[in-house]
Amino acid sequence: MEKIVIDYTNMMSESIGVHGINDDDFISVKGDIERAVKRITDKQLMFRRLPYENIDKIVEYGKYIRSNFKNFLVLGIGGSALGPKAIFKSTCGRYHNEYKIDKVPLPKFYFEDNVDPDRIYDLINTIDLENTCINIISKSGKTIETLSQMMIFIDALQKLKPDSWTDNLVFTTDKDNSVLLDIGKKYGIKMFYIPQEIGGRYSIFTPVGILTAAVCGCDIHSMLKGARDMNELCNNEDYTKNPAFMYAVLQYISMKRGKNISIMMPYTDSLKFVTDWFSQLWAESLGKKYDIDGNVVNAGQTPVRALGSVDQHSQLQLYMEGPFDKVVTLIKVDKHRYKMPIPTIFEDSSELKFLCNSSLNKLINSELEAIIYALTQNGRPNIVINLPSLDEYYLGQMFIMLEIGTAFAGYMLNINPFDQPGVEHGKISTYALMGKEGFEERRKSLEITNKIKFLV
Amino acid sequence: MEKIVIDYTNMMSESIGVHGINDDDFISVKGDIERAVKRITDKQLMFRRLPYENIDKIVEYGKYIRSNFKNFLVLGIGGSALGPKAIFKSTCGRYHNEYKIDKVPLPKFYFEDNVDPDRIYDLINTIDLENTCINIISKSGKTIETLSQMMIFIDALQKLKPDSWTDNLVFTTDKDNSVLLDIGKKYGIKMFYIPQEIGGRYSIFTPVGILTAAVCGCDIHSMLKGARDMNELCNNEDYTKNPAFMYAVLQYISMKRGKNISIMMPYTDSLKFVTDWFSQLWAESLGKKYDIDGNVVNAGQTPVRALGSVDQHSQLQLYMEGPFDKVVTLIKVDKHRYKMPIPTIFEDSSELKFLCNSSLNKLINSELEAIIYALTQNGRPNIVINLPSLDEYYLGQMFIMLEIGTAFAGYMLNINPFDQPGVEHGKISTYALMGKEGFEERRKSLEITNKIKFLV
Repeated sequence: MEKIVIDYTNMMSESIGVHGINDDDFISVKGDIERAVKRITDKQLMFRRLPYENIDKIVEYGKYIRSNFKNFLVLGIGGSALGPKAIFKSTCGRYHNEYKIDKVPLPKFYFEDNVDPDRIYDLINTIDLENTCINIISKSGKTIETLSQMMIFIDALQKLKPDSWTDNLVFTTDKDNSVLLDIGKKYGIKMFYIPQEIGGRYSIFTPVGILTAAVCGCDIHSMLKGARDMNELCNNEDYTKNPAFMYAVLQYISMKRGKNISIMMPYTDSLKFVTDWFSQLWAESLGKKYDIDGNVVNAGQTPVRALGSVDQHSQLQLYMEGPFDKVVTLIKVDKHRYKMPIPTIFEDSSELKFLCNSSLNKLINSELEAIIYALTQNGRPNIVINLPSLDEYYLGQMFIMLEIGTAFAGYMLNINPFDQPGVEHGKISTYALMGKEGFEERRKSLEITNKIKFLV
Repeated sequence: MEKIVIDYTNMMSESIGVHGINDDDFISVKGDIERAVKRITDKQLMFRRLPYENIDKIVEYGKYIRSNFKNFLVLGIGGSALGPKAIFKSTCGRYHNEYKIDKVPLPKFYFEDNVDPDRIYDLINTIDLENTCINIISKSGKTIETLSQMMIFIDALQKLKPDSWTDNLVFTTDKDNSVLLDIGKKYGIKMFYIPQEIGGRYSIFTPVGILTAAVCGCDIHSMLKGARDMNELCNNEDYTKNPAFMYAVLQYISMKRGKNISIMMPYTDSLKFVTDWFSQLWAESLGKKYDIDGNVVNAGQTPVRALGSVDQHSQLQLYMEGPFDKVVTLIKVDKHRYKMPIPTIFEDSSELKFLCNSSLNKLINSELEAIIYALTQNGRPNIVINLPSLDEYYLGQMFIMLEIGTAFAGYMLNINPFDQPGVEHGKISTYALMGKEGFEERRKSLEITNKIKFLV
């Protein structure tokens, strides 16, 4: 199996000196690794079984959407948006919606994951709603942002096509208990289901991600094959031969040594939204107040989304000279989709001559090599995830490798990587402020917190 | 003067307990504040004088571009892209390029700040180059990314319009010393100049930002008026009455207390790219190995770009329960541009009833209030920057307030907030790998670093 490779040479003290990891560090976390291995190989871990499911019906419906609609609009937030967006952007690129329609016979794509009134106003006044398929995603069916958007778009559809508004809708939700389920059944709306055991951030291989993949022309079978192959490789209990485990172990040791910031920086725009997806996975899975024994631990490492080479001109100064509180994960793609030559022009200038007859392909990977070298020379820990190409097969590998790695890191930290108790507090307050029944008490306590204000 | 307000109530121990700031903290940094006040009020600080400059010629040329081109493409990276993009996005919104052309009589906008071959390939095969004005921005004229892009686009233009290719170009660069200057003079290309003393990240009020502002229909005079009014307010040497100083002091005390992460989270998509712009400003200005006396300090605080309410479903769990290593700056806009009502529909559902007849405007700001409350209840330091509206006047205030605040924080840290010595190392290695003359030695040392590799 050809596979993505993790190069952790520059995490080691041999390369970077005092801020590097050595054998003693690995030995010191042996017990934590053993515990994590036991848990992650549990056959009940549903998210690892997803790439083996039959997806024919979703793929078929994706084809139907593709040939019957000009636009595909996803309404969802968090795990309901980040996976689909990562798949779409890594498959179709940045300028997809602006291609002349005859060049790419695919719908235009829109992912609405916010309730900014200006953004929704702009969209609803821009999009040709009659020819838009709207995929509304919320597992619980309680996501206030998605429900509000849904109300706005269904209302507009009903006015536009009173007799056939349901034709433009697909719901993706829980099979047993969800407002979307109720509405979907009542009006006969097309529905796909998210398995009960799967939380939003681990849902990329459920209909949440797969339907978008099917509409955008991604080679899903190859992606899932990649995920399966990597999943099987990650059954290896020896962490030194298991990329997901190794990634987690390196970060875990780093956290213990005060590196509370984890940067992910792909050297290609196509993977920019993969870092967004991963940031949720890492932050929400590991950021926990209690460990599973009930001790207060305030665990977690803050993910930072970066992009090469753009952020060399923004964040690199800090990464090179600031505090030693970071691990940088660089993502390298050996072969981009296209060759983009730099022409021979203005060759009389010494600033330009050496660029003549080169290529952006060579340039972007030279920049990456240069930064690896620079970080390493400055004693800064860095990991390289190497993809042979942007092929879906490797993307599938990367998605599940990062999922397994995240869960593994959670088990090493002895926390639950699958819950998110800390976001309830804000949800309840939002209900209270919006006047939902049953939240009157919170509303009162919100009202009396306006004590003295410090303003300038 | 109506102005933006910084609410730092929930930075104080009165609100958040042990992780809050109290009077002793302010007293302990009195000397640092005094030193910083002296330096920041230096009349030679050119970036504070920019909003007073005459911009008539740039505005006029912006109008010319607007009425003669269908597209406006900025080639630039770092400070040459982040300012223009922030102004454009906060003025024109997310879906500008997809509006029907008759609705908005403005060019489409493109900001190319990367050398990803796939992205450039996509763009050059999408854009109508003949009707595109290309603004090439590099102060030094040595930015390898921008120069490569320039070579590709000028070559394409020359093939398309051999006799008039220069008509589509505007250069923004240094007045005295730059390759762009040489080429511009030789071929008679329209040029604007960046004052010598101004570094990229402080250049938003130079032609770098102003030309984009002029093309995209931003009310520049109002923006500069806002900047001037705020600049004058920030002459107040009492930090308790000076929002820029206070912002810096709060972050400085936080850094000293181990909060090495600074999150900026606006509750509107319009300001998403302002956080990108600010991240460069904060990271590159403060991330320094040496203080000005030559001591190794490894100063800096890592900026994290977030967006409300989106990141409530991605990062909030970590902010609520993870380590106490963060300060969260929330940006609130009292009045968005449009009112987006939520219609009365599906009112028989208890999950939806309370949303009927409300609005996204109320919802997004309720979410913000809820999160302020939730963070505060959990003892998490948070600051609110409050804008009365998205009016350019307040944007201008915010830009310069954050610039002055950043420089002030740099002076408190006793470092130079205007240089970026740490990025040179990578540049030299890139030159070496690309085969530029004079960098042979670096090339050799790069080649011999391939020692043992740790791979998985």
